[in-house]
Amino acid sequence: MSDEKAKRTGARRHEAAAKVPEIGVGMLGYAFMGKAHSSALRRLAYAAWPPPLVPRLVAIAGRNAEQVAGAAERFGYERWTTDWRDLVADPQIQLLSNGGPNSLHAEPTIAAAEAGKHVLCEKPLGRSAEESYEIWRGVAAAEVKHMCGFNYRFVPAVRLARELIEAGEVGEIRHFRARYMQDWGVDDTRQAWRFDPEQAGSGAIGDLASHVVDLARFLVGEIGSVSALVRTFVPERRVDDAVEATVEFHSGAIGTIEATRLALGRRNAFQWEINGTEGSLAFDLERLNELRVFRADDLRARGFKTVLVTEPDHPFAEFAWPPGHIVGWGDTFVYEFHHFLSAIAGERSVAPYGATLEDGYRAAEVCDAFVSSSRSGRREKIVYRTL
Amino acid sequence: MSDEKAKRTGARRHEAAAKVPEIGVGMLGYAFMGKAHSSALRRLAYAAWPPPLVPRLVAIAGRNAEQVAGAAERFGYERWTTDWRDLVADPQIQLLSNGGPNSLHAEPTIAAAEAGKHVLCEKPLGRSAEESYEIWRGVAAAEVKHMCGFNYRFVPAVRLARELIEAGEVGEIRHFRARYMQDWGVDDTRQAWRFDPEQAGSGAIGDLASHVVDLARFLVGEIGSVSALVRTFVPERRVDDAVEATVEFHSGAIGTIEATRLALGRRNAFQWEINGTEGSLAFDLERLNELRVFRADDLRARGFKTVLVTEPDHPFAEFAWPPGHIVGWGDTFVYEFHHFLSAIAGERSVAPYGATLEDGYRAAEVCDAFVSSSRSGRREKIVYRTL
Amino acid sequence: MSDEKAKRTGARRHEAAAKVPEIGVGMLGYAFMGKAHSSALRRLAYAAWPPPLVPRLVAIAGRNAEQVAGAAERFGYERWTTDWRDLVADPQIQLLSNGGPNSLHAEPTIAAAEAGKHVLCEKPLGRSAEESYEIWRGVAAAEVKHMCGFNYRFVPAVRLARELIEAGEVGEIRHFRARYMQDWGVDDTRQAWRFDPEQAGSGAIGDLASHVVDLARFLVGEIGSVSALVRTFVPERRVDDAVEATVEFHSGAIGTIEATRLALGRRNAFQWEINGTEGSLAFDLERLNELRVFRADDLRARGFKTVLVTEPDHPFAEFAWPPGHIVGWGDTFVYEFHHFLSAIAGERSVAPYGATLEDGYRAAEVCDAFVSSSRSGRREKIVYRTL
Amino acid sequence: MSDEKAKRTGARRHEAAAKVPEIGVGMLGYAFMGKAHSSALRRLAYAAWPPPLVPRLVAIAGRNAEQVAGAAERFGYERWTTDWRDLVADPQIQLLSNGGPNSLHAEPTIAAAEAGKHVLCEKPLGRSAEESYEIWRGVAAAEVKHMCGFNYRFVPAVRLARELIEAGEVGEIRHFRARYMQDWGVDDTRQAWRFDPEQAGSGAIGDLASHVVDLARFLVGEIGSVSALVRTFVPERRVDDAVEATVEFHSGAIGTIEATRLALGRRNAFQWEINGTEGSLAFDLERLNELRVFRADDLRARGFKTVLVTEPDHPFAEFAWPPGHIVGWGDTFVYEFHHFLSAIAGERSVAPYGATLEDGYRAAEVCDAFVSSSRSGRREKIVYRTL
Repeated sequence: MSDEKAKRTGARRHEAAAKVPEIGVGMLGYAFMGKAHSSALRRLAYAAWPPPLVPRLVAIAGRNAEQVAGAAERFGYERWTTDWRDLVADPQIQLLSNGGPNSLHAEPTIAAAEAGKHVLCEKPLGRSAEESYEIWRGVAAAEVKHMCGFNYRFVPAVRLARELIEAGEVGEIRHFRARYMQDWGVDDTRQAWRFDPEQAGSGAIGDLASHVVDLARFLVGEIGSVSALVRTFVPERRVDDAVEATVEFHSGAIGTIEATRLALGRRNAFQWEINGTEGSLAFDLERLNELRVFRADDLRARGFKTVLVTEPDHPFAEFAWPPGHIVGWGDTFVYEFHHFLSAIAGERSVAPYGATLEDGYRAAEVCDAFVSSSRSGRREKIVYRTL
Repeated sequence: MSDEKAKRTGARRHEAAAKVPEIGVGMLGYAFMGKAHSSALRRLAYAAWPPPLVPRLVAIAGRNAEQVAGAAERFGYERWTTDWRDLVADPQIQLLSNGGPNSLHAEPTIAAAEAGKHVLCEKPLGRSAEESYEIWRGVAAAEVKHMCGFNYRFVPAVRLARELIEAGEVGEIRHFRARYMQDWGVDDTRQAWRFDPEQAGSGAIGDLASHVVDLARFLVGEIGSVSALVRTFVPERRVDDAVEATVEFHSGAIGTIEATRLALGRRNAFQWEINGTEGSLAFDLERLNELRVFRADDLRARGFKTVLVTEPDHPFAEFAWPPGHIVGWGDTFVYEFHHFLSAIAGERSVAPYGATLEDGYRAAEVCDAFVSSSRSGRREKIVYRTL
Repeated sequence: MSDEKAKRTGARRHEAAAKVPEIGVGMLGYAFMGKAHSSALRRLAYAAWPPPLVPRLVAIAGRNAEQVAGAAERFGYERWTTDWRDLVADPQIQLLSNGGPNSLHAEPTIAAAEAGKHVLCEKPLGRSAEESYEIWRGVAAAEVKHMCGFNYRFVPAVRLARELIEAGEVGEIRHFRARYMQDWGVDDTRQAWRFDPEQAGSGAIGDLASHVVDLARFLVGEIGSVSALVRTFVPERRVDDAVEATVEFHSGAIGTIEATRLALGRRNAFQWEINGTEGSLAFDLERLNELRVFRADDLRARGFKTVLVTEPDHPFAEFAWPPGHIVGWGDTFVYEFHHFLSAIAGERSVAPYGATLEDGYRAAEVCDAFVSSSRSGRREKIVYRTL
Repeated sequence: MSDEKAKRTGARRHEAAAKVPEIGVGMLGYAFMGKAHSSALRRLAYAAWPPPLVPRLVAIAGRNAEQVAGAAERFGYERWTTDWRDLVADPQIQLLSNGGPNSLHAEPTIAAAEAGKHVLCEKPLGRSAEESYEIWRGVAAAEVKHMCGFNYRFVPAVRLARELIEAGEVGEIRHFRARYMQDWGVDDTRQAWRFDPEQAGSGAIGDLASHVVDLARFLVGEIGSVSALVRTFVPERRVDDAVEATVEFHSGAIGTIEATRLALGRRNAFQWEINGTEGSLAFDLERLNELRVFRADDLRARGFKTVLVTEPDHPFAEFAWPPGHIVGWGDTFVYEFHHFLSAIAGERSVAPYGATLEDGYRAAEVCDAFVSSSRSGRREKIVYRTL
């Protein structure tokens, strides 16, 4: 190579690895969450620059050999296995990403932590508060980094809401009303495990209401009591289709929480609104790039602003396109994993912007209270256990 | 007058009266509701043609002599009085329109009915279920026509919703979620009687939640039980600021009901959504000309339709401008009074499209249950009394 | 009557007339505009209090004797006639409201003015700029008050837009884009005169584009040149269905103007947006209570505010219900006539918030330029005549 | 490894390459488009499965050595260079992706094609119709696959619009009105090359209006004539800030096209609407997952449907998350490159769903006509050259 050419061209292979350390990842699950996690892991190497750590996709585990092999090939995992214990045993893996069915959250997550691996476990953490507590307790004892997959904390508009609340922009919060509505529960038969109480633990409660509870806690604070109705509408279905609840927060705020798989026309409508003494915020996941903001001290022409959360001074701007170029649902997983890798790299803590397994456990306490309140007909006060 | 001129011109005074009978109206109240009722009564003579009866504004009653005299002059009442008993005693009055404070609903309404006058009483009917029951019972015994002022049944989009439900367009209803949000409760001091428990009976419950309950009953059916939180946020305020509730319907549908005067940025946002087995409906009073409609059997490009309810085949078209020319909140009172006058004229019954005093009573039972549930912490089953 | 009773009750008949003078009104037209005008005139006596003048509905004129007699009976005109000259000749009439077909704008309006009557003439003023100029000239010479029925200047949100612009809230305007879309032109055969070039002068241009032009002038200023395409899509139709234009304002702003009767799904969608150096405004007549407002100097969470124009400090608040209680299309005529009666009573001038006949003429010059530009294929500079 | 373990686990490295052929890619540009292209190329290996070809990121070229080296490292290019001719000379490269400034579109694109490489060139194709024609001619002669980067054809809602139009759902199109509005032109000084006529060719015209023109052609058909105003508002700026135009299509449809960088509050609002004889469609890029659809033959409750274009039977479903889980702007590049790789692999042709360089040329003819019409003041008929 001539000197001149050397000046204007370069080979870069192997250079990046020298700069940013790799982290070996083992993935449990290849279906919906497996795909979401794997795509995010692939994108982390370049989505923001430089990355805190570069994921190395070491192995993926799943029950069906053919499908897990296909997923390994598609997403570039070096190996696959039908036994998640192989992930736990693998010294090349430093992070277990658990996107398996709810019944496979406890044992692999705890085992991985006990083997010294950091763990990211999908929500709901366990199938019950009891199981969730055991996961949290087991993992916390291992002193690894842990995170619960409440990815909606990583929607830019949600993070902006949190920042506005922290900055006092809405004042003291009085109301939180939220509903997570889908409609595939009307007749869907494809996702069998989600309708199996043994595997899923619950229906709309664990799948959807747990998201609402986490966001309530993330934006408003701890929930003190709930009154709820839980209902199964579809004959012969063994899990709940819907839950309706009123909630009291420790702060004194009150509100409603709802989750349903039977709201025709609402495909993925996680809608919430917050009213405080100084302003209000509103959000709909089907328009996840937008936050609606009202300020009481606005000028004469007052009203809810539709804020397109794509600005350079908005959350997650380091991943973003220019203003007005919206992001998608899948991007939230990129931000979520980036946050966790940053925590593993020591650049930040998982909390408070990410959900820890304690957050996962606490959400489960509230979800359990929905069920017990529905049965008892009473408002249930929630007592949170500590380690 | 020449023959030719006689052919092309005419004097019409006194002709109309000969065709459509008049009905003498006595109005109780001159403030917000007094203005809404009076404006509607003035417009009835020509709003749809011919009218069922032509209102004659005989007299208006109110506590403050100066203000009631001013209202009489403004709206063209022939007389005014500071004693509502004058209305009851007046043989020229065949209809009492009661828009006074809640504490003046019971006695004047019953007395007028006992004097043989038809009665339209504003909501909430009484300050409690007990008082509401007494009003209903007293009036029903008099065998006059009666109506409770739930004017939102007369929003064209709401009536269309009812018609679509009756036609089976949404199938079996599973969810009803509704919230009536205002924000003037943050610091308002003008409407004193609304914050006085003696005069108002309750705060957001009677003022706003009663509307929600009536619409729930109008669209979905009878409410069987409720769990509720009632809260007063503003220090030294003696009525409730907000109520949050979950509800069960006799049909098996479940949902949430909320009312608050503290939702900053929501000025008059009565929002509700219904999900059934065949479709969904959604509404916001701040855009009262629109009904959002989803049908499960729609073609491939499915979604909520924003229906502008201003078409010739839509409800209340006989009052309407051409399609796309929207109506206002005040128009709902014109439709409401027209409905009641039609009932008095024998052309239709008040129920089921208008609310009777029984509907007013039943809404009050639910509202009382909100309070008792909030106190007891229990889901309260609602028992409705009959005559 | 006892002394005590005298204190608490009163008869008011004939008192109002003593305070607020009456003005005799003659109405030309009983169809769409006739109904809108008549309803507004009836409401003026009490809509805001006290009224500047109390309309006395003296007579109504129209071609069909049966229909005009019916309209007289419905709206309470004292007399009817099939010859508009009777209105001109009637000394009890001080104001002619001309809501007849466009072909009946010129002669009756000029004759009424020459007879010393104030005139309110519907838009488009004439069927051409030439005819419009003659009307303006004839009326101006008579030194009566005159107004052109551009009622959209009296939409609260539009007036608020004007006030915000005057206050510098949007800075220097760079863009105005507007379109008035309806869809009844697809197959409607009812409104025959609107498709008759002799009676209407034009199609979508006079009916819809004239509104757009007036609002452009009201909000942005004088139009200097246009390039346009005028098109008739429906076979055998003799007037235009649609016009598309680019416009230059004297101020340097540029934009687009469109009007069509063939935009399926748009029933009455007069949408416009303004972009300035400091902010933007947007509006849609199908949601006429809302103004969308963007301010460049807003805080970090920027976005278009949806302002519900129903506040006490918003335009036309003296007519309004409490905040959040929206008004309808028909209400704009109440505000418009109130404005004109105030001007007649000497309390204000018609301009600049109301449109004078000069405004009617100037809009017609622009509309004519649409046609000539479409024919010539050239950008047409507009020269406005003066008196 | 035991037999049992062999059954449940597997190593997959090197297997994928054996199945799906690689294609070597050379990238020109590392800024906005370079990032969008590179991200998409990285995701293609797994975004849909199996991919038509697996991109191998061979080399990236750019002017600034430090920045191009950084981009190479970030996105995983094997080499970098400051001389695009190195890409043309590289036999490992079979596809040149040209995301450089407009002034670097012609020479590298033609040279790469002449070297037998497939080419994807960003829009606008050239800085003028003449230059665009030369690019198209040069590349077509080389008989390689070519595509122009009109990525908005690959928005799922846009493709669905096209499919609905093809299926006759909107009937014969009468109107197309579109505007591409941004606001960073108010004061931005960062993207220097975009304001340099030598490098960019034009301002809002090439940057934004070219997108509008391509979509007009994609959805409605060929444009026959235009009348336009082109304007530079910001002092000392050497390119246009805005263009306003009326257009005629060969089909007889008419409409407006606008592009501006000065519409405050509109960050990336490419909005368009189509009205036909059977229905209407509307779209806003800031809500790119939604298509608004109106059908004239809908039932009594008619209105625009807001269709969330995320269903299994919607375009690009093979890349998608479950219904209701929206995608982002960056995803359109994944779909676009996938389309082009499929075409290279022989599975489909670039046209009509992708834009060829002929489409790039034709859009440039319309853009040039905007300028000439603005200068001449005349409606300009457009003549398209052929090879």
